[in-house]
Amino acid sequence: MSWMISLDMIAPLARGAAVLGTGGGGDPYIGSLLAEQALREHGPVTAVSLEEVPDDALALTVSMMGAPTVMVEKLPSLDEIVSPVRALEKHLGRKMTHVACAEVGGVNSTIPIAAAAVLGLPLIDADGMGRAFPELQMLLPTLYGITASPLAISDEKGNTAVLETANNLWTERIARVACVEMGCSVMIAGFAMDGLQARASMVPGSLGHCLSIGTGIEAARTAKADPVAAVLELIGGLEIFAGKVVDVERGTTKGFARGSARIENADSTLRLSFQNEHLIAQTGDRVLATTPDLIMVLDHESGEPITTESLRYGQRVRVLSAPSDPRWHSPEALAMVGPGYFGYDMPSHRFDGVPEPVS
Amino acid sequence: MSWMISLDMIAPLARGAAVLGTGGGGDPYIGSLLAEQALREHGPVTAVSLEEVPDDALALTVSMMGAPTVMVEKLPSLDEIVSPVRALEKHLGRKMTHVACAEVGGVNSTIPIAAAAVLGLPLIDADGMGRAFPELQMLLPTLYGITASPLAISDEKGNTAVLETANNLWTERIARVACVEMGCSVMIAGFAMDGLQARASMVPGSLGHCLSIGTGIEAARTAKADPVAAVLELIGGLEIFAGKVVDVERGTTKGFARGSARIENADSTLRLSFQNEHLIAQTGDRVLATTPDLIMVLDHESGEPITTESLRYGQRVRVLSAPSDPRWHSPEALAMVGPGYFGYDMPSHRFDGVPEPVS
Repeated sequence: MSWMISLDMIAPLARGAAVLGTGGGGDPYIGSLLAEQALREHGPVTAVSLEEVPDDALALTVSMMGAPTVMVEKLPSLDEIVSPVRALEKHLGRKMTHVACAEVGGVNSTIPIAAAAVLGLPLIDADGMGRAFPELQMLLPTLYGITASPLAISDEKGNTAVLETANNLWTERIARVACVEMGCSVMIAGFAMDGLQARASMVPGSLGHCLSIGTGIEAARTAKADPVAAVLELIGGLEIFAGKVVDVERGTTKGFARGSARIENADSTLRLSFQNEHLIAQTGDRVLATTPDLIMVLDHESGEPITTESLRYGQRVRVLSAPSDPRWHSPEALAMVGPGYFGYDMPSHRFDGVPEPVS
Repeated sequence: MSWMISLDMIAPLARGAAVLGTGGGGDPYIGSLLAEQALREHGPVTAVSLEEVPDDALALTVSMMGAPTVMVEKLPSLDEIVSPVRALEKHLGRKMTHVACAEVGGVNSTIPIAAAAVLGLPLIDADGMGRAFPELQMLLPTLYGITASPLAISDEKGNTAVLETANNLWTERIARVACVEMGCSVMIAGFAMDGLQARASMVPGSLGHCLSIGTGIEAARTAKADPVAAVLELIGGLEIFAGKVVDVERGTTKGFARGSARIENADSTLRLSFQNEHLIAQTGDRVLATTPDLIMVLDHESGEPITTESLRYGQRVRVLSAPSDPRWHSPEALAMVGPGYFGYDMPSHRFDGVPEPVS
């Protein structure tokens, strides 16, 4: 079932995407600006379901790569968004037919909308993760043998690189150093897929899901109800902690926003570790949630999603956990996105919907 | 006038190229191995003069990029040498007609011979520098407005990147970080030129010149004459110091072999500073020679050129200076390759053929 993405949907969609972006994927306000500009100039975008994508389609993911700390300072132009697409079309000798979302996130759910508007192409209502992850190879399509390369990278200075790599980890490695050299925030296009591949590997309906979450938050605010409760119901999640941000340690290193935050309440302290996205939530030795499950930080009252780069001392927040797409819990997937990959010596904690007992 | 490059010419040509390579451009023995293998498998290569290159030719420079310290450990295969050429031909939608040398150096004068042999194409008897320089944009063609990009980079792991950049400095910046990530030694092809552009911008006859120097060294050895004197006569140079290497400081940082060496004799100490190539020769406060003029270190007796990565404590050496192509002394050229660019706060010392008075 196709539907139209109109101007008024952008803000709630970006907000919902920032919730599922688990702290990463960029600032929803920044993301909204671009998509709104694109829709104003080029008209609404048609979102099509995975079932509607023809077998012989050429879908490309269009996204921003870099440290969210830098992205918020370096908004791309609409020209820059389509620049890697043009480079990749030239390389492939073929026009793309559908725009796809690599991940869910405040910027990376709205950049594809802007790209679809400018290119006049349908956008697939799906994404490659069902959340956000920090590295380029961390897409479910990677687990289905779909190659990230040929992948094109473009910056605002007029530099473009087209990569053909040995595997998706090498795409990440080479694209990442190029991204850092280009200024830590670039536009990329890649993961060429036909309809069959997209259907097999992507997470369906994620744009619609983001829109529900965003409108759910707004409806709860209007009704003076609890927006966080509305989010929990929509994502099937659990509130694992509530408290005040008392410490944030953050650095932009090797192209990522890495760090940790401490959140305190009367009973205990939660430690959140992140690399663009929240990866681990623990109180003392007790692990409450880990990647690949979703860890989200929302403003205590407004339910506004707080990205890792906008975490600040004094914010009163509630921390939620929700299950990831079950495919992320296979052994191959955990090797790619589990705590161990990010350097944490702990098993993956799988969301079971049971609240942790308060100590 | 065209001539054939045969198997027996490779070793002297590589040795002569290592002399003009001013310490950089890689090890002549390593370079010889590859070209000899290519000639054995594919037959001799035709060297053509710049005058013989048709106006509508498509010449590409084919070279190795990286730290010579790593290059000597990671010899490319013949497949790897032509891999960036194939990528660039695909990108340009056109077959190349002539192989060109980016620089003169032990490896980068023989790699193009190997490429020409494998590709079955003529090699232009010329190069882009008349010496070796460490960075990709440091070609005379850059001064003539010829763009380094589209430029292709390939490694031995099967990774290739095609860059289209804002200018040649950006080609260097992005290619360099990709090169470092790919293992610090990669094959590149770029600087697409037609015959008119090649004639206007390149240094003519450099391959033949290298061959004369190499055979001159060998002839002097056979005749029990002084090979260093033979080199001096052929390059119009001057011996600026003779002594024993007493200290070498070297690191492979940011993709380059950087460092300095001290050479001592009874009267004084020469300090040589290098970044792949020798950049500055000075005794105390007195500057004897600087980039862009050529500074060469040869073994005291055999006249064997000593590359910066093979400088060792105890070597008895003679240090020569010779004038660069005069175009390197224009203000624009000095901004690109003068001492200031490399971080030395001194004017360029221009070779004048007058021996420095001994203090």
